[in-house]
Amino acid sequence: MKRRSFLAGAGLTGLAAATMAAPAIAQAKPRQLKMVTTWPKNYPGLGVSAERLATRIREMTEGQIDIKVFAANELVPPLECFDTVSSGAADIYHGAEYYWQGKSKAFNFFTAVPFGMTAAEINAWIYHGGGQELWDELSARFKIKAFMCANTGVQLPGWYRNEIKSLDDLKGLSIRMPGLGGEVMRRLGAASVTLAGPDIFPALQNRTIDAAEWVGPWNDMAFGFYRLAKYYYWPGFHEPGSSLAAGFNLDVWNSLTPSQQAVVRAACAAENDFTLAEYNAHNGAALKTLIEKHGVEVRRFPDDVVAALKKTSQEVLEDAAKEDPFTAKVYKSFRDFLDTTSEWTRIGDEGFVEARRG
Amino acid sequence: MKRRSFLAGAGLTGLAAATMAAPAIAQAKPRQLKMVTTWPKNYPGLGVSAERLATRIREMTEGQIDIKVFAANELVPPLECFDTVSSGAADIYHGAEYYWQGKSKAFNFFTAVPFGMTAAEINAWIYHGGGQELWDELSARFKIKAFMCANTGVQLPGWYRNEIKSLDDLKGLSIRMPGLGGEVMRRLGAASVTLAGPDIFPALQNRTIDAAEWVGPWNDMAFGFYRLAKYYYWPGFHEPGSSLAAGFNLDVWNSLTPSQQAVVRAACAAENDFTLAEYNAHNGAALKTLIEKHGVEVRRFPDDVVAALKKTSQEVLEDAAKEDPFTAKVYKSFRDFLDTTSEWTRIGDEGFVEARRG
Repeated sequence: MKRRSFLAGAGLTGLAAATMAAPAIAQAKPRQLKMVTTWPKNYPGLGVSAERLATRIREMTEGQIDIKVFAANELVPPLECFDTVSSGAADIYHGAEYYWQGKSKAFNFFTAVPFGMTAAEINAWIYHGGGQELWDELSARFKIKAFMCANTGVQLPGWYRNEIKSLDDLKGLSIRMPGLGGEVMRRLGAASVTLAGPDIFPALQNRTIDAAEWVGPWNDMAFGFYRLAKYYYWPGFHEPGSSLAAGFNLDVWNSLTPSQQAVVRAACAAENDFTLAEYNAHNGAALKTLIEKHGVEVRRFPDDVVAALKKTSQEVLEDAAKEDPFTAKVYKSFRDFLDTTSEWTRIGDEGFVEARRG
Repeated sequence: MKRRSFLAGAGLTGLAAATMAAPAIAQAKPRQLKMVTTWPKNYPGLGVSAERLATRIREMTEGQIDIKVFAANELVPPLECFDTVSSGAADIYHGAEYYWQGKSKAFNFFTAVPFGMTAAEINAWIYHGGGQELWDELSARFKIKAFMCANTGVQLPGWYRNEIKSLDDLKGLSIRMPGLGGEVMRRLGAASVTLAGPDIFPALQNRTIDAAEWVGPWNDMAFGFYRLAKYYYWPGFHEPGSSLAAGFNLDVWNSLTPSQQAVVRAACAAENDFTLAEYNAHNGAALKTLIEKHGVEVRRFPDDVVAALKKTSQEVLEDAAKEDPFTAKVYKSFRDFLDTTSEWTRIGDEGFVEARRG
């Protein structure tokens, strides 16, 4: 009911009604679908990827599926995207599954969790390790079918006005870090807060916060955090490879022809590949600029901080798993997969880049 | 001319003629295209990925592009695939670009080179760092348009009957390792040879060779090398992330509609994502089985061996770059990109997995 009144209040009743009738339209006519996103208009990386996903699908279907993309707040606020698609008031969302963790903590595992999986690992788990099946089971409860459609790669744990020399330096630190990563920081004595992207710079500037994480070098440089906090920390313990999702209203998904469903699957997987590569390319160049042109001090957290973050992250995940049986089931699948594959990550990618650097 | 007589000899003249006429067929009729591959029929990973690529394209176009996949030697031997598509006798190949290094050493950089790029890095370079443009320039000389369409991830440098305790142990070692990796081994005193996959096990068995690399845990376990050589070495210096390609005859490519081209691009990128994930998932599980069930001894090359492999790899790449100006141009782009992004790899993916493990 709240949803209805919200939509009515925004003058969207007609829109919602039109969209909900869409599955009844004959397949020969172009389908007009609405995608709501959690990103600012044309936001580099994720916002652009949402537009590109729509373009790919439009081109591949010769306009038979014509998706109009709405930036955050154009139709609904970012955190309303899921409910809007679940109810059928829009057809598709493009966002991060952990935004819906209020519905089930299990959603976190389909984006990123502290000391969890890298982009390569989450792709392996979702596509080939049973992850998609669990995700489908969870999403179906809300009349949604979701796919991976972008990945930011490793995110960095942020910008700090002062150097972090030991675990004591986290005590009382006010830091912008949302979600489970923020919970880890909180358990270690920091005051972690959630702020929307555009609100971070002012908060750092007026010293409401002492530190802030956002995404990684590319997106962070654009916001100019280096002008206010010169220490940039790694490793990216809180989000080691954040997977983004395109979620379809289940009735809309089921109304697509097999060919159209194949187009959507391929478009999402293609963007998943293309966007991770885009982040890696831009992050590499931006990191170099931050160090060489802006004098940023790139630091690794001290060993005692890394050890405490790791131990606390595991506790936070175990507590999340206790919240309901389904989250426990997802956590078990996630953990078992990581246990099985982590030695491969060690002797494969890590072993190689370590040798190349050494 | 040789190509013609070869095809005639194989009784394929009619087939070749039919295929070359294909671009003249009206778009409304289904296009029948022929894909020749360098892989055995349904070979796990790469052979299956080639079939899946064809299936994706068939489904997305509702059968308008119907690709028939030929395994290695069904139409032409693996190393003839490129010429077969270049001449128009087949429409598409699915293989590894470094197989064509006899035409230009530059092709190596679009698959993998010793101490080169990981899968994540080559994706970033090809999609967003100028790699595709250089590749297009090279391929166009041969009337081909190629795309990344699969990646094996890190390959391991192989199975050794005896432990490698120092650089001296490489002297006189007979090892199956083709391409530039084999050249690195040769310069360090090994006798490196090239053998087709199915010939490796017998050669190890009759002691023609002392060691052999193939792909990684998943594909290697299936060949049973662990029964003959119990030391399995890392890091994967020779092929740190092997990218596979789908190459289209340029006339065929240009004859596709914009929508069909969008389908092909998305299908290739989707497979690139899906297959790397498949290798990582299966490699993780296979490595665990090799260690726990088959008693395989997984070893890192000693430091002096790693250092020598690294130094010699750089020399081999620099010598390759001297062969012609275009290879030099590709090498420079490749090297510059790696120089710009390697610090990001360090503090991003490597930094995280090191912290998680430590």
